[in-house]
Amino acid sequence: MIIIGERINGMFKDIGDGLRNKDPKPLQQWALTQQEGGAHYLDVNSGPAVPTEERPQAYEWMVKVIQEVSELPLCLDSTNYNAIEAGLKLCKRPAMINSVPAERPKIERVFPMAVQYNASVIGLTMDKKGIPKDSENRLAFAMELVAAADEFGLPMEDLFIDPLILPVNVAQEHAPEVLKSLQMIKTLSNPAPRTVLGLSNVSQKSPDRHLINRTYMAMAMACGLDAAIMDANDDDLVDVAATAEILLNNSIYADSYLKVFRQR
Amino acid sequence: MIIIGERINGMFKDIGDGLRNKDPKPLQQWALTQQEGGAHYLDVNSGPAVPTEERPQAYEWMVKVIQEVSELPLCLDSTNYNAIEAGLKLCKRPAMINSVPAERPKIERVFPMAVQYNASVIGLTMDKKGIPKDSENRLAFAMELVAAADEFGLPMEDLFIDPLILPVNVAQEHAPEVLKSLQMIKTLSNPAPRTVLGLSNVSQKSPDRHLINRTYMAMAMACGLDAAIMDANDDDLVDVAATAEILLNNSIYADSYLKVFRQR
Repeated sequence: MIIIGERINGMFKDIGDGLRNKDPKPLQQWALTQQEGGAHYLDVNSGPAVPTEERPQAYEWMVKVIQEVSELPLCLDSTNYNAIEAGLKLCKRPAMINSVPAERPKIERVFPMAVQYNASVIGLTMDKKGIPKDSENRLAFAMELVAAADEFGLPMEDLFIDPLILPVNVAQEHAPEVLKSLQMIKTLSNPAPRTVLGLSNVSQKSPDRHLINRTYMAMAMACGLDAAIMDANDDDLVDVAATAEILLNNSIYADSYLKVFRQR
Repeated sequence: MIIIGERINGMFKDIGDGLRNKDPKPLQQWALTQQEGGAHYLDVNSGPAVPTEERPQAYEWMVKVIQEVSELPLCLDSTNYNAIEAGLKLCKRPAMINSVPAERPKIERVFPMAVQYNASVIGLTMDKKGIPKDSENRLAFAMELVAAADEFGLPMEDLFIDPLILPVNVAQEHAPEVLKSLQMIKTLSNPAPRTVLGLSNVSQKSPDRHLINRTYMAMAMACGLDAAIMDANDDDLVDVAATAEILLNNSIYADSYLKVFRQR
């Protein structure tokens, strides 16, 4: 299970303030805090704190200041591909591009860039018309993304397909469809693409957020989830990731497996 | 999710003492306690506390004293089918027979008895040679059980197939095979048989028992688990069952879904 820490995002006040004031401290602090929690990647998202035209410089700055304190690889999260490219140029380790929908012009922009910078790609099972309700149409988009990886020479294990979970309190019928999608995505090619979810979405505005997140994570891992953009400092959630890895026989059981998982 | 409370079992000292002293109190107390926790069925197992030849009378007595305090249906748990039949004769509500392996003489004893008493059957994916290592051989046994239900006229929804989870600390490779088995069992017939696990087995002698139980339950529910013999008084575990039902869209989401689940 690849844990992508979600916290360096301009939507959070402390990160937004850091971006507006060019103060690296909150970004650097969260880089270290998430690394200690168990993150393997750090998501990096300016959010609306930076005007569109300034985003390329902002992503350069974010990549630079985070890499001053952490060796974790980065997951550059923006719909502005010029900003992502500006950041990719400075990444010391292979990064992730978060994200590209199944839309031809965006695929043509993102996949060659990923190959050029040796980056992975998060591909979304949606297009301009939005997110499909069922697993079948999610799978059709996943197939387009798999075909694009083939076409542009992206290794299949560098494609992470996100079947897009929505909040259970307003779009409950999507939750089982996403589980089915995860299972089916794994049958699309050999080797299969990998899978990812923006896990915290499932519990938005529900009172039992942490319980919903960790239950859905275990369920999704049983269906083939490889990675999640998530709260890397929710210890109970990270424990569930460690436990599910044991129960999938992906890590060898030891009585101390929870500690071992964090020490990787 | 059908919760079968595991606690009325002669292996526990208080229940064993109750059986030896013909004291109904511990059995009646655990019937009520498990009912309050969220149990839908009560497993009833004399264990070794009663000599084999006395078991039919013991099961009569257990059924009688439990039904004095609780209206929950019972899951009669024994390898002694005369004891189970003695209990079935007194059950006021349709019971479960726990359990029958995929062995012809036992199938011929149990399935007609289930039909006669309108009971469900827990069928184990094993025979005299033991439990298979992989999902394929578990499935072969499941098919024999499905064929037996057809042959003897047991409604398919009254057959609960148990693919037999073993402790992860000594038989880790079984855990993912059981998940695969759960998925495959659901494809065996239409309507499909139901599925059940003796959940607490997975965590035997592990230090993080509760975490392992509730993580595996969520994973198994994502793969089609319908019922579990489990600790109905582990509130965190029951909360995960309630949450997974929501995430499978089996119950309608409400902010108060945890309370609703227990009030059913």
